[in-house]
Amino acid sequence: MIVALAGGVGGARLAVGLATVLPPDALTIVVNTGDDFEHLGMAISPDLDTVMYTLAGLNNPVLGWGRTDETWSFMETLAQLGGETWFRLGDRDLAVHVMRTAALARGERLADITRALTQRLGVRHLVVPMSDDPVRTVVLTAQGELSFQDYFVRRRCEPVVTGFRYDGAADAHVPPRLRELFDSGNIEAVVICPSNPFVSIEPLLAVKEMRTWLKARAFPVVAVSPIVGGHAIKGPAAKMMRELGHESSVAAVARHYGNLVDGWVIDQQDASVATQLDQRVSVTDTLMTDRTKSVALARVVLRFARNRAERSDG
Amino acid sequence: MIVALAGGVGGARLAVGLATVLPPDALTIVVNTGDDFEHLGMAISPDLDTVMYTLAGLNNPVLGWGRTDETWSFMETLAQLGGETWFRLGDRDLAVHVMRTAALARGERLADITRALTQRLGVRHLVVPMSDDPVRTVVLTAQGELSFQDYFVRRRCEPVVTGFRYDGAADAHVPPRLRELFDSGNIEAVVICPSNPFVSIEPLLAVKEMRTWLKARAFPVVAVSPIVGGHAIKGPAAKMMRELGHESSVAAVARHYGNLVDGWVIDQQDASVATQLDQRVSVTDTLMTDRTKSVALARVVLRFARNRAERSDG
Repeated sequence: MIVALAGGVGGARLAVGLATVLPPDALTIVVNTGDDFEHLGMAISPDLDTVMYTLAGLNNPVLGWGRTDETWSFMETLAQLGGETWFRLGDRDLAVHVMRTAALARGERLADITRALTQRLGVRHLVVPMSDDPVRTVVLTAQGELSFQDYFVRRRCEPVVTGFRYDGAADAHVPPRLRELFDSGNIEAVVICPSNPFVSIEPLLAVKEMRTWLKARAFPVVAVSPIVGGHAIKGPAAKMMRELGHESSVAAVARHYGNLVDGWVIDQQDASVATQLDQRVSVTDTLMTDRTKSVALARVVLRFARNRAERSDG
Repeated sequence: MIVALAGGVGGARLAVGLATVLPPDALTIVVNTGDDFEHLGMAISPDLDTVMYTLAGLNNPVLGWGRTDETWSFMETLAQLGGETWFRLGDRDLAVHVMRTAALARGERLADITRALTQRLGVRHLVVPMSDDPVRTVVLTAQGELSFQDYFVRRRCEPVVTGFRYDGAADAHVPPRLRELFDSGNIEAVVICPSNPFVSIEPLLAVKEMRTWLKARAFPVVAVSPIVGGHAIKGPAAKMMRELGHESSVAAVARHYGNLVDGWVIDQQDASVATQLDQRVSVTDTLMTDRTKSVALARVVLRFARNRAERSDG
């Protein structure tokens, strides 16, 4: 079993590649829920939905979030009624939020709800939240503490970041299905997707059982760098690194993860830094601009993980 | 001040007529909330919304419920996800339910929420729920007790009715704004709209303060018959009357309300029964097939109420 740790778009793209290469019983995708929030009375799980929609081929490639074939009547009317419109919810997307919220209110677990939704959308691989318990990423900024979506969507990542807190993570447990997988010992490798280290992967690692499991591991952890040529492909990762006093580079990301990662898959643009890393390195084209490239990257990642790859320059 | 008691479509149509004739400070429309329910985690108030949409000119005249210019992406997706689809919710309509639900969760009162929503939609007259407290109409049938929407929508009014119960009515209070109006004594007349006696008007009258206020009245109560030529214009009123052992006639409706009503406005098709009623009667065309006819009926009703009308055959 390969376990992929994923946030939103970058994670979803690699997940699609991995799910194309691996059968359903050989891949589990663990998704960040630190950016989940309650909005308009609904339980919204942005990363879970991005992964789910992307695996189902329903993701909106223009927006980078939400669904294809979306309509916006709800949002238009909400605006007319004076409702909050800073977080945009499409009419089709709403069906997921309403069903999830109703199921949570009935006492169902997020992992089970996610399983039911993904199966309905034809996703055959297991997509599982990092926890059924709420974990909430708080962004510490020069303007004070901000809830993640407030920082990310409403304030468009503009406030200068000074740190992060993952509320609830200390008491959160991984879902039973994941616990069973951990206990089975049947793990070939863990793949850290090219997601934001601070707000996609770190909240996931802040769940105690997750960190304990990774520390005691007998399998390799390979990571795909979210930084390419000094920039983040999408989102505020590079900006956050600079604001936190690091350079925005592959080397700095590698230092951030330290010995949690055994091997790095980095982009060909960064080939020159391969020798600076303490870990094994695989250099390839990591830009997943279409499904074919996601699959190609997934193949490289899996080969690398399985070979417990030698140091390589590509 | 004229106070109109209204259920759904019939009530909404007369309310439009009254609101066209009367200025905002001379009309209060009190709406049944006995058919309110929780669905998919949302607080839905069908009669309030029908009245609101109709007054705002946004009602869907084809469906007889919901909004004009509606889209159905949410519902389509909900069906794909295996959600409950027996109660249809349009994308624009959803905005009202989501806002109402969120506001109730914040502790706001239904009357205040309704005021805010109606004002946003340009409705100038006061539309007020019969209570801020939940009252739930239960339909007693040969197949057992059914919640109202289960009976009305899911089972299409097919079960044979044996009676009704209005859960919560005994403990429900009228909203403060209505209480103030009652206490002011500044009421010219009450108009009972041509709504279903059992599931639109009776729940409203089951609120103790409402009934007490009407019993001690110094103003006339005039009612527009919901039965025309032995039939209900819309909905199950005639079917319910027959199942409860009554004939479906103006006379039977008049007997049902008894001395709660001082004067009846009946349709010209029923002119011959005018002499059978104990109350004053006005005979006119009560079929509100368009706005002009709603206005014409409203004028007749108001004249009748203000004259404490003589017995008339039209």
